[in-house]
Order: sequence, then C-alpha cells, then structure tokens
Amino acid sequence: MNFKEIIENIYENVKQVDNKGDLASYIPELANVKPDNFGVYFSTLDHNHFGIGDYSEKFSIQSIAKVLSLSLAYHLLGEKIWERVGVEPSGTAFNSLVQLEADKGIPRNPFINAGAIVVADILISHLQNPKEEFLAFVRSISNDSEIDYSSEISKSEKEVGFRNIALCNLIKSFGNIKNDPSDVLDFYFDLCSLEMNCKQLSELFLFLANDGCSLEKNKQLISLSQSKRINALMQTCGFYDESGEFAFKVGLPGKSGVGGGIVAIHPKHYTIAVYSPRLNVKGNSYKGMKFLEEFTTKTKLSIF
Amino acid sequence: MNFKEIIENIYENVKQVDNKGDLASYIPELANVKPDNFGVYFSTLDHNHFGIGDYSEKFSIQSIAKVLSLSLAYHLLGEKIWERVGVEPSGTAFNSLVQLEADKGIPRNPFINAGAIVVADILISHLQNPKEEFLAFVRSISNDSEIDYSSEISKSEKEVGFRNIALCNLIKSFGNIKNDPSDVLDFYFDLCSLEMNCKQLSELFLFLANDGCSLEKNKQLISLSQSKRINALMQTCGFYDESGEFAFKVGLPGKSGVGGGIVAIHPKHYTIAVYSPRLNVKGNSYKGMKFLEEFTTKTKLSIF
Amino acid sequence: MNFKEIIENIYENVKQVDNKGDLASYIPELANVKPDNFGVYFSTLDHNHFGIGDYSEKFSIQSIAKVLSLSLAYHLLGEKIWERVGVEPSGTAFNSLVQLEADKGIPRNPFINAGAIVVADILISHLQNPKEEFLAFVRSISNDSEIDYSSEISKSEKEVGFRNIALCNLIKSFGNIKNDPSDVLDFYFDLCSLEMNCKQLSELFLFLANDGCSLEKNKQLISLSQSKRINALMQTCGFYDESGEFAFKVGLPGKSGVGGGIVAIHPKHYTIAVYSPRLNVKGNSYKGMKFLEEFTTKTKLSIF
Amino acid sequence: MNFKEIIENIYENVKQVDNKGDLASYIPELANVKPDNFGVYFSTLDHNHFGIGDYSEKFSIQSIAKVLSLSLAYHLLGEKIWERVGVEPSGTAFNSLVQLEADKGIPRNPFINAGAIVVADILISHLQNPKEEFLAFVRSISNDSEIDYSSEISKSEKEVGFRNIALCNLIKSFGNIKNDPSDVLDFYFDLCSLEMNCKQLSELFLFLANDGCSLEKNKQLISLSQSKRINALMQTCGFYDESGEFAFKVGLPGKSGVGGGIVAIHPKHYTIAVYSPRLNVKGNSYKGMKFLEEFTTKTKLSIF
Repeated sequence: MNFKEIIENIYENVKQVDNKGDLASYIPELANVKPDNFGVYFSTLDHNHFGIGDYSEKFSIQSIAKVLSLSLAYHLLGEKIWERVGVEPSGTAFNSLVQLEADKGIPRNPFINAGAIVVADILISHLQNPKEEFLAFVRSISNDSEIDYSSEISKSEKEVGFRNIALCNLIKSFGNIKNDPSDVLDFYFDLCSLEMNCKQLSELFLFLANDGCSLEKNKQLISLSQSKRINALMQTCGFYDESGEFAFKVGLPGKSGVGGGIVAIHPKHYTIAVYSPRLNVKGNSYKGMKFLEEFTTKTKLSIF
Repeated sequence: MNFKEIIENIYENVKQVDNKGDLASYIPELANVKPDNFGVYFSTLDHNHFGIGDYSEKFSIQSIAKVLSLSLAYHLLGEKIWERVGVEPSGTAFNSLVQLEADKGIPRNPFINAGAIVVADILISHLQNPKEEFLAFVRSISNDSEIDYSSEISKSEKEVGFRNIALCNLIKSFGNIKNDPSDVLDFYFDLCSLEMNCKQLSELFLFLANDGCSLEKNKQLISLSQSKRINALMQTCGFYDESGEFAFKVGLPGKSGVGGGIVAIHPKHYTIAVYSPRLNVKGNSYKGMKFLEEFTTKTKLSIF
Repeated sequence: MNFKEIIENIYENVKQVDNKGDLASYIPELANVKPDNFGVYFSTLDHNHFGIGDYSEKFSIQSIAKVLSLSLAYHLLGEKIWERVGVEPSGTAFNSLVQLEADKGIPRNPFINAGAIVVADILISHLQNPKEEFLAFVRSISNDSEIDYSSEISKSEKEVGFRNIALCNLIKSFGNIKNDPSDVLDFYFDLCSLEMNCKQLSELFLFLANDGCSLEKNKQLISLSQSKRINALMQTCGFYDESGEFAFKVGLPGKSGVGGGIVAIHPKHYTIAVYSPRLNVKGNSYKGMKFLEEFTTKTKLSIF
Repeated sequence: MNFKEIIENIYENVKQVDNKGDLASYIPELANVKPDNFGVYFSTLDHNHFGIGDYSEKFSIQSIAKVLSLSLAYHLLGEKIWERVGVEPSGTAFNSLVQLEADKGIPRNPFINAGAIVVADILISHLQNPKEEFLAFVRSISNDSEIDYSSEISKSEKEVGFRNIALCNLIKSFGNIKNDPSDVLDFYFDLCSLEMNCKQLSELFLFLANDGCSLEKNKQLISLSQSKRINALMQTCGFYDESGEFAFKVGLPGKSGVGGGIVAIHPKHYTIAVYSPRLNVKGNSYKGMKFLEEFTTKTKLSIF
C-alpha cells in the first residue's frame, strides 16, 4: 500500500475543510499557538517513515503524556497499580468529579485527569527525583535528548488549575493520594507540559506498536502483556467521552491531548501522530479526528 | 499454533476452578439450567473448528442477540441509525435509567438494554413481520434452520420485566420509541430468548471476523465498514460496565449474555464461544471470562 | 387586619403583571383552559371567607390531590406508611427517576410522582373500591358532594403518561408496588383528575389548618400529629424543586399542581387557594407564586 | 405550660436511652470531648430561661456558625446574595460535589459546606478584617464577649480538610469564589471553630425568634423579612439530608453541627439548644434529635 500517497491525499482534503474547532482556552498559554498548524507523521515498525505539513512544529502534548507516566508506573508496580485506579471508561466528561465520589476516590481509569493524578502520586512515591527520572525515561524511549518540559505551560496551568486542585484534594480525602497534594499537582502539571513535534511523538510511541520493546535499542521497556493492556486502555478510554466514537470511526488505540495532538497505534504495524490545535466540543483535535477517520477508512487498516 | 491443545489445557484448568458465580435470577426460567455446564467452541476463517465440554448444550443467548438485531438494523438504515442511539460506553450498570434521563432518551449505545430496545423499535418500523424476518436473518447467516426463540424464556421474562417496561416507556416519553411500547417489548423479549449452543454461536459470528461476509455463502451481509464498527462497539460496550476489563484482560471484541454465554471475535482470524451459566457480580459468565483471559494470554493473540 | 382589602390590592397588582408562564402541555387536555383565569379564595378557622376573580372556576387540581391521598393512606396505615416512602426533599425535578434508582425504589417523599404512585398502590391494597372510597373521603371532608373526577383529564393523561408508566414499573421492579402497575396508574390518573374551584379547594384544606379536624362536623379526620407532619412535608416538598423557594418567599406549607392551582395553609389560622393556569419553568403557577409571596409579605403572617 | 417539668422529664428519658451515635471522627480534635455530655438550654422571648445537664459545657458549634455568617452576609448584601448561592434543599449528603458540578458552581443553599464557603468568600470581600469583625458581630448579638474561636479545632480541621479544599477550588473553577481559596478556607475553618455552651447558643439565636431584633438591646440586626427567610432556610436545609425528617418530626427551624450541637427556634416564642456529641449516621446529634422530637410532641408546640 502506498501510505505516502494516501496520507498526502487525505492531508490535502482535510486541510481544506473549514476548521470548526476552538483553541483550548482553559490554560491561557495553550492559546499562544498558530491555530492553523496542521501536521502528520507516520512511522512503521519496518522503518517506513513519512511526514507532511507542520510535523516538525513543537506542541504541548498534554494528556498524551498520561500514557507515558502510566507506562513507567505500570513497569515499576506491575498489576498492583490497579488497586489505585480502574480500567473502565468513565462515560462522562474528562474532568468530572461525580464518579470519583461514587467510587470512593478510585478513578475510573488512568487517562481521566483524576487517574493521571493518582499515577503521578505513585511515581512520586517510587522515584527519587520524579521530574528528572520521568524525563529521562521519555528521552530514553525516544532516543531523543531534546524532548523537554515547558515551564511556560506548566506555570500557566498552575495558575488556573483549580479543578485539578479540587480533584487531587478530593482523592486525598478518600486516602488515595499518599503525598502532599501540592507536590503531586506540581509534578502532574510538569508531566502535561511535555513538548514535542509529530515526528518525535510518532517515533516515541512505536514501543506500544512493538509489544513494549523499543525499536532503536531493542529493549523491553514494559512487558508484552503490559503493552497490550495499555493499548486496550487507550482504545476504551483514550478520548474522554469520545472514546467510543474514536474506536467506532478510527478503530485504533490512541490518545489525544488538549494541545491538539493525537497519536494512534496499529499494534505490530505502525504509529501515526497528528497535530492541529483547534479542538472539537469534546476536547479532541477537530482535524486530527477527521484525518484519522479518513486514514483508516481509506487504508482499510484498523484492528477491527 | 496448536489451538486444540491450548484450549484443552485451559479448559481443564478453568473447569477445576471453584465457580464463585451465581445463576441469573431475575428471569425465573433462566435458573432452570445445569449450573455446572461448561462448553467452548472455536472456529477459524480457514475452517479450523474445535469444541470441548458442553459445547452442544443449548442456552439462552440473551444480550448476545443485541449484536444480531443491531446488524440487521444497521444494514437496513445505514448511518442514520446513530441518530437514535449512541456509540459511547455507558460507564454504569447495564440497565440504568440515569444516563437515559440525562441524555434525553438517546441510549448511550446499542448494547445496553435501552439501546437494544430502540433497535427493536427500529426493526418493527422497517419489517413487516419482525419476529419472523429477524429469525430468518439469523438462520440465513448461520445456515442453520434449527435456531429458534424459546417461548418459555420470553414468557418468563415478560412476567417480570418491569425494569425493561420502565426503560421502554421512559424512552417513549422522550419520543425515541415510535411504536407501541408493548409491541416493542414483546419483540425485544423474543429477541433475547434466542437459543443456541456454543458451536452454533461461534459459527454464526464468523461473519464479523470475516469483514461482514458470510463464510458459507460468501454473501456480504453488512458492509466492511459496518462490520468493523460493530466490532469496535463490542470492544468498548459489549460487557456492560466490565467492558474496559474485558478489553484489558482479553483484548478482543466480544459480547456476553446473562444466560452465561460469551462470544469473542478476532477479526480476520477466528471466533470463540464459551458457555457457563454462573455469572460474576457484573453479570458476565464467571468461567467464560476466566477462560477467555487465559486463552488470549496463552496464545498471545489479541487485537492489541 | 383587613384581609379583604389586602387581597384585593395584591390581586389587582398581580393581575396586571405580564404573565410569563406557559400552560402545562404534557397532558393535552390541560391546555383546554382559559389561560388568563385568575382566582383567589381565602378561608379562616373563624369563618372569615373571601373570594376574588375566577374563584368559582373549576380546574384540575392535579398534584394537590397527593395531599388528600396521603392523608387517607396515613390515616389507614399510621407510621408504617414511611417504610414505603421517605420524607426528604428530592432536590431534583418532580418526575426524576435518578434518585429512585439510587434509593432502591423508595421514593424520596409522597409528593413527587413516584411517591404518590406508591401511596396510590397502598390505597388500592387497603380499600375495596379505591376510586369510589377516595372520592367519598374527599367529599366528606369538604361536605361538598359535587367534587368529582374528570374523565376527560384522566383519559388524556393515560394516553401520554409514559413517564409515569416508567416510574411505576421501575418501582415495581424494586418490589415497592404490590398491585398490578396498570391498576395503580389507573387509580393514580383518576386521583390527579379531581376538579374543584378555589372556594372548594380552600375550604377542603381547612382541616390541615385545624390540627386534622374537619371544621364543619368537628370530626378528627387524621390525628394532630399526622396533620402537623403533613404540613411539614408540604413545607419541605410541596413545590418540587422550588420547595425551598416557596418556604423562603412565602413561608407557609402549601401544594401546587400543574393545573395551575396552589393551596397554602397557615396552621391554626387560615387557608388560601389561588388559581392561574400559566406555569413558571419549575411547573408552578406563575401568578399564584407571585400572589402568595406578596400576600405573606404584606400581612407579615407566615410560620417563620 | 410548665416547660421546666416537661424538659426535665424528657431529659431523664433521653439520658437513659442507649446512645447509638458515634463521635465525629473526620476532625481529630473533635473527638477530644466527653462522649456522654448531654445538656439542654431553653430561652423564651418573655425571659423564661431554663437549663439542665451539661448546659454550660463548651463545644464546637461547627456548622451552626453558618447561620451566623449568613446573617451577617445577608445583612451586608441584601437579596443580591442569592446570585451566589441557592435556597433549595440539596437532597444529598452535606459535602457532596455532585450537584455543585451540575449547577455550575452555585451551591444549592448556604448551609451545605459549599454554600457556607461561598458566604465566607462574600464576607472576605466585604470586611476589612473578616475574622475580627465576624467575631465582633457574634459577640454583639449575644452580648457575651467570651465567645471565641478555638485555634485547636481550626488547626485540626485545616490539617485534614481536603474535601473542603476540593469544594472551594471546584467553586473557584466555576468563578464563584472571588478571593484566594486558601484565604477563604482559612476564614471558613475559623468560623466553624466557634465555641460556646448551650446557654450561650440558645440566647444567641433568640434574635431569629424575635424577627431579627436583638432581645437585649432591641436592635434590628437583620430585617424582619431576612429573619423569616433564614428561618425558612433552616427549616428546609438545616440538617443536611435529614432536613425533611427534622421538619417532619420536630417541626421547627433549626441547625445542627457535627460538634453535637443543635439549636431550634420557635418564631415569636423561644429557642432551645441541645448538646450531645454522639452523632447519628446522618451527622446530627443522636440524643439531640431524640430530645427535640419528644419536646415538640409533648408540648404540641411546633410551627405546623
């Protein structure tokens, strides 16, 4: 299959679509981007790579980082991690406190904010220097020492993150946060401020297409079973309350962030990263969703 | 891979596990089964078939029938069907009225009772003799004219189905049921009373492993895209509020019923049907879940 | 205090207010009224009576009848009635199914639809001819044999009462309806179809201002304690999710109906009935609420 | 009526009842009380006063202080205060975040924690030295300069008040907190730490039985209308999700605190304060509720 041609065609089509989305507004700094940026990068396990548009433009990966922090925490704790966070879709908006209260402080899954905050708490308990060690983990997967946090973004989010402060303290009140809420949130906001471009993002996630093994160094970062399970979680919970829609229309595990990035994974085959910062009403990249839907429709490649 | 040997080994292991589940009690007639029945049937697209245990014991497929009624309705209406029912996991118990109220009568997905009742309403509107034509559809897929409804089961459910009567009338109050609620429920209870054994169930669902095409007659029953989307829906919504867990532990699209049956599909490869009537607290077959988890773990075959 | 003058003044003021409310639309027959009807009737324990406007215009008292059915059921069962229905405000819209599900079929209070349906079920279990005996009870309190059900209204509601059918069957599924749901709903719709005018309504409710004792015949219809408790329930739960507002602004126990009637009670002093069929967004008479607020403000008479 | 004799009789009865309640445990310092303390104080507008048992034992009035902070804020802002907080019963537990989310940061009423936190925010915006000025207001009402905050209690609550931190930040995220959440919570925890005994509490609340006018100095502290409305709010919302029960069984406006105090008000007649620190499952004083129920039953004095 000529992926390059297919991607080029879809890219041109989607580029011309009227972009109905809006920039994320709840973190002021996130609005400081070029709203019409649109980039795609495609990477296969057999070293077929291809980028188009603004694929080397850096952006804040935001919630996509939750997959990376989960990977490290899952590697460190094994199945015990699921005593602290569930594996079910939430069925409500990504930052809702409702189910957290009903479920006594156990977040529904590690990809809603509540769950990712618990994962951040776990990492703080298990790492000496969480911020440095997590970054080292990410850099080692990608073999790219340029990936870094953005202090502007994390600072901006810290100033307005009242809802996340609420979430963290609510979970703490149920006993499912072990460290000081301020420390946990500090690390959480840093996590979410990771910046990279489509090329870096696509290459970074290849380990999840490769059964948990880094492609470059052939190192087993997480076990085969852990890799499959993280993919399954992305499939059922990766897009807030649009997860069903993404599985339905795209048919691949994936994760989105409010920075406008989406990464999707075809296990054993490829990853594809898309960046377009205008978001649909569910908080996922408007053009990113459109592009990926057309991509799996045209290629007829999905896991279903 | 020697599937026969793997299945035999797992079957023996799981058979000896203490069965902590309980028979479905809410439909009296469903309790009239041998609680220790345990059967498995495996069918591949390349005509590799294998059964073990009580695989030729008939049982009530209950909610598994929702995949079949959806297939027929999707085939008849196309994408317009999604104006009447959603594609998102519900995040709550399978028969909850809460979200239905919040979502103004649009059920979250076609596999919760509310959604399947709307699908039944759609079929009534589009078929002359819904009961006969739906049965003919099922028999034609499976090429098995012995598959039939159980009047004992449907009668038993009609006598105690107050919650489903509530659901149907609630949806009617929002205008999303077009026919008389009694007629809709009558057909719905018939649907759910379909009986078959593991062999029939496994073979019947091969069309969803085969991109919507019947294996026997090579007839396109639903389109490729429809087939992928139904698989995606099973993956995200097929097991009530244990859907995430099933994706996580088994890693295949599937559907369970309170009769104790589960069918799972590996697109492009195989289907596997399991029957064991004792249910876990979430309403899914206790041993069926265990068996399938071990099966995909041992074979390392899952879509993730 | 010159009640007559005060009532006349307020009546004229409120009559001229632009009526922003809408007629109840969910029961078609309820819309067959003159929308600008506006009547008031005032009755004191010391036989001071006064009416103004359309106070002799009959209307459907709808939910106001729930106070009467509760009175009879409470008289028949005593405190055992509270095993079947609660005494707490619901905090949500009057016909919500949400809390019913959370509370396992025990309605929050006897004045939401769910609770009144349970009370209807109780009366069916305890009366030979519920419809006749309940009417006889109401007529005996008021000493007015002309009060009657409206078959047009009850028939109209039966044709569209899907939400109440849903409620009744949901409660039945939890075991808190003992009779056939159709019989319970039939009686419930009859109850709600009672018709009377402001004069009849005001005089009928005097027994609740008089510690449970009928004024005419000096007969103890319900006990002193029961009378106080029904007043308390009206105070906390009589106006759906506007109950707090009514207590806050009017400061008297009362009950409204979607027919546009409101009756308020000043224990040991008087009752006042208002009728104006246009409803505010919470389902209570727009002008009725306005009138009563001004009435207790001007007279400085409220229980607080 | 011989109140003294009635109170003595009921006191002796209730004293001997097996106390099934538990001490509040969520604020560690609150558990440092004698669990069997039990005191009552009764004050009438015509200077009839009477105490029994541990009526001069100081305790933390906790949520009862919410009536006082509301009184001051209502006095300062007038009806504009209701743009920031509602007047409806919440229908759920006192510290629930669920409705807050549904209602976009407007707490249901000023007596749930969320509402009292908003009232604290209002006071901070309108007072130069909120902590000092509020204490001065309370002391001036009671003419008792010994009433004071407890720094042990407020410190203890600050250390574990994660749920209130969550509430305050959640409201802030909706824009309904204007000051820094830490400052708001600091003042809120101070408010709740007010200590007094039954005698002080009963005398302090006489202004609400006296149409808003202080008894000692005959000074109108809040308007007649404000006084009635605060009483109405206590009636519908004063006891968390046991408010209906209290109206039903006791029939007086009142307010409870997790310190074990309850104050009830018979407008135009009297106040009565009860203290017994063991709480029922709803968080209200077990013996306090029992005592007040018997008191209004025996005296036949309630507002209904």
